Amino acid sequence: MSDSTLPALLLKRGEDRRLRAGHLWVFSNEIDVAKTPLTGFAAGDAVRILDAGDRPLGTGYVNPSTLIAARLVDRGGHALDASLLVHRLNVALSLRERRYPGAPFYRLAFGESDGLPGLVLDRFGDVIVGQTTTAGMERLKPQVEDAVRKVLDPSAMIWKNDAGARALEALPSEVGVAFGTVDGPLRVEEGGLVFELDALGGQKTGWFYDQRANRDQLAPWVGGGAKVLDLFSYVGAWGLRAAAFGAGEVTCVDGSQPAVDAVRRHAALNGFSDRVDAVCADAFEFLKDARAERRRWDLVIVDPPAFIKKRKDLREGTLAYRRINEMAMQVLERDGLLVSCSCSHHMSRDALLREINAGARHLDRQVQVLQVLQQGPDHPVQAAIPETEYLKGYICRVLPS
Amino acid sequence: MSDSTLPALLLKRGEDRRLRAGHLWVFSNEIDVAKTPLTGFAAGDAVRILDAGDRPLGTGYVNPSTLIAARLVDRGGHALDASLLVHRLNVALSLRERRYPGAPFYRLAFGESDGLPGLVLDRFGDVIVGQTTTAGMERLKPQVEDAVRKVLDPSAMIWKNDAGARALEALPSEVGVAFGTVDGPLRVEEGGLVFELDALGGQKTGWFYDQRANRDQLAPWVGGGAKVLDLFSYVGAWGLRAAAFGAGEVTCVDGSQPAVDAVRRHAALNGFSDRVDAVCADAFEFLKDARAERRRWDLVIVDPPAFIKKRKDLREGTLAYRRINEMAMQVLERDGLLVSCSCSHHMSRDALLREINAGARHLDRQVQVLQVLQQGPDHPVQAAIPETEYLKGYICRVLPS
Repeated sequence: MSDSTLPALLLKRGEDRRLRAGHLWVFSNEIDVAKTPLTGFAAGDAVRILDAGDRPLGTGYVNPSTLIAARLVDRGGHALDASLLVHRLNVALSLRERRYPGAPFYRLAFGESDGLPGLVLDRFGDVIVGQTTTAGMERLKPQVEDAVRKVLDPSAMIWKNDAGARALEALPSEVGVAFGTVDGPLRVEEGGLVFELDALGGQKTGWFYDQRANRDQLAPWVGGGAKVLDLFSYVGAWGLRAAAFGAGEVTCVDGSQPAVDAVRRHAALNGFSDRVDAVCADAFEFLKDARAERRRWDLVIVDPPAFIKKRKDLREGTLAYRRINEMAMQVLERDGLLVSCSCSHHMSRDALLREINAGARHLDRQVQVLQVLQQGPDHPVQAAIPETEYLKGYICRVLPS
Repeated sequence: MSDSTLPALLLKRGEDRRLRAGHLWVFSNEIDVAKTPLTGFAAGDAVRILDAGDRPLGTGYVNPSTLIAARLVDRGGHALDASLLVHRLNVALSLRERRYPGAPFYRLAFGESDGLPGLVLDRFGDVIVGQTTTAGMERLKPQVEDAVRKVLDPSAMIWKNDAGARALEALPSEVGVAFGTVDGPLRVEEGGLVFELDALGGQKTGWFYDQRANRDQLAPWVGGGAKVLDLFSYVGAWGLRAAAFGAGEVTCVDGSQPAVDAVRRHAALNGFSDRVDAVCADAFEFLKDARAERRRWDLVIVDPPAFIKKRKDLREGTLAYRRINEMAMQVLERDGLLVSCSCSHHMSRDALLREINAGARHLDRQVQVLQVLQQGPDHPVQAAIPETEYLKGYICRVLPS
C-alpha cells in the first residue's frame, strides 16, 4: 500500500543522487528546509521523501536533530507498518536459513543492509534480542514485535537498547523483555561448541556473530597443538574455537572479570578446561609483561573493541592499533601467525594493514597476508552504503626480515 | 655468506625509504646514476644495493632497461645462490605444508611475497612447474633447479616461460622440461575432485590455485540442486566444485574449444557428466542470448581474465567489468547470488564493488555483499608490496530494490 498521506520531505536539487545510487541516508543540509522545514517534524515522524522536482524517492523517517536527518526505508513508497517489516524480515531470514540451515544462531537483521535502518535483531534459537538505534525505528517497536511474532513466533524477545549510538538520537538506555519469558542464560551454538550468555547483561546484544566466519578460518592454522593467545577475548569465542580445532594451549585475556569467568565456564562446559586458561588483565599490560618474561605463542589473536569510535579519535586510535599489533608480534614464535582485526568503521582495511606492516618493520620483520577477514554473511555489506562495512581483519604470517 | 664482492648500486638520497618500509623494488629514477651508471650493468647482474650514505640495504639484481631497475632479494646481503634459494623455498614450503598437509597441490613460491622476486613455482604433486619473469631470476634458473631438487626432489620440473611479462625484460617465450620426465597430463586434486591438465600447454602454469580458497566458499550456497552458471570457466574448476557441493545443473561457458573439451573430460572423470555442461561461446554473447531466451540461474560466477592488463586499459576495462556484471545479474533468478572476481591489479577492491553496485542500480536492484574473496594463502600478499595483491572478489546477493 503506497502511502501518499504522509507529510513530504523535499530534497535540494541534485541531493537525490546518493539515494538513487542505493544509499538510504539524507543529511540535514540536503533538505530543502525553505519548503519543508525540519522544525515541522518530530523525531521519528514518517515521511515521503521527494527530489527537488517533486519526484517521489520513497518513504522513510526523519529526525530533525541529527546529522542524518532522514533514512529512506522503502523505495516503493509503502507505509512503515508491520506488513512492510514482515516482508523485510522474511527476505532477511531466507538468507540466514540458506546459509545456516537448522542452526538458528545468527544476526537476523542488520539495519540498512537488510532494508531496516536503525534495527538490529539477533537470534539465539528461540529467543530474539533486538536493538533500535534511531528515533524512527524506536517508534516502530510495537510493529517490530508484531512482525517478529509473525515471522518467527519465538518464545521470547528482549530489547537490549543500551547502545551508545542511541544517545545521538536522544533515546534512553533501556533493557527489558518485550514479550515471552526469559529464564536462564541465552544459549549459542557455534562450531559444535556451546556458550551461555547473560540474557540482559553482556556486551552489545550478547554475542559477536560478526566474527563467526572468521573464527571458522582458524581451523587449518591451530591444529597439532598450537599455543594460542586470544587478546580481548570477551567470553572466549576465539579461544574456545581454537581449542576445538586442536590448539594445545590457549590463553584468553580480557580486562573484565565477568568475561574471564565466562571463559572459564565455557571451557568447562565444552570440556576444554585443561587447555584453555583465562587471565583478567589489560591486553597492553599483559603483552608488556609476557614479553619481559619471554613468553611466546604460535598464534596471537588481536580482536579489540573499536579503538576509533569517532572520526576525531582517528589519530590516537590508529596509533593504538599500531601498538597492539607490534606488541603482539613481539610475543610470537618465529614464523608465527597474527590474526588482527578492527571493528572501527573509520579504520579502513588498507590502513589496518599499513599499521600492521609498520609495526613489523619497526621490529625488522615482514608480513605475509594469508587471508582477509570480514564481517560474516549475516552482517551483509550493502554495496551502496560504505558505512555498513565495519569489520576487517587479516590472518598474517610474521617472518624475520 | 655476505657477498661484498658484488658491484654496488647506489640510491639517491631518501630513495631507500620504500625499501626500508618493506618493499623490494627500486625504480630507475631512484638510482644515483652519476656514481653507479645503469649503463655499467647487464640485465640480470647481481648487485649490492646501498643508500645515499653508503649504508647497505642488501643484495639484489638489476635490469638497466626496465622501469623497475633493481629488485632487493636479501636484506642480509647474502649472495644470490642455490643456498639462499634453498632457504627461501623451505620457508615457503613450510607455509604450504602447514595449510595443505598431505595435499601437495599449491603455488609453492609466489615471487616477491616469498622473497623470490621474478619466480613462480607451482606444485602438482611430484611435478614442479616454474616461471621466471625477470632477467635476474632467468639467470638463476640453474640454481633454482638445484634448489628445487634439494628441497623437493620432484620427478620432473617444467619451465613454462611463456608469460607476457617476460617481454618487458626482453626474455624469450620458452616452454620445456628442466629435468626429469613428464609423461601424460599434470594431475591436480582439489576438494576431492581430480583434474588433468596439459603439462606444456594451457594457460599460465596450468591451474588457477589462487581461486581454490574462493571455490571452497561455494559450499553453503549451491547445495540443494542450485542452477549454476560458470562464465570464463577455463577447464571447469568453479563449475565442477559447485557440482560436487550439490548444484543440480551447471553450465560452464568458455571462449576456447580446448577449455570446453577439458570441462567435459573433467565432468566425466569425476562422475558429473549428467549435471555439468559446457558451451564454447564468448561470455558477453552468451549472456545476451540467454537473457533473450529468458534463461535464469540461481548463482552466476563471473571470473574473467584480467580486463585491465595495463594502466592505460583502466577506463575501458572498468567498463567491461561493469557490463559483464550487469549482464550476469540479468540472468539471475530473483534473490540470486553473484560471485564476481577481478584479477586485474589495477582494479581495486572498492572499484570492483562500485561497478557491481552501478550495474545493479541500473537494473533497479540492490546488492548485499556476503563474502569477500581474495587470492589464496599460497599466494600471500606481502604487506609492504601492494603490487602482490591482485585477486579480489565478492559473493553477492542481488535483490529487488
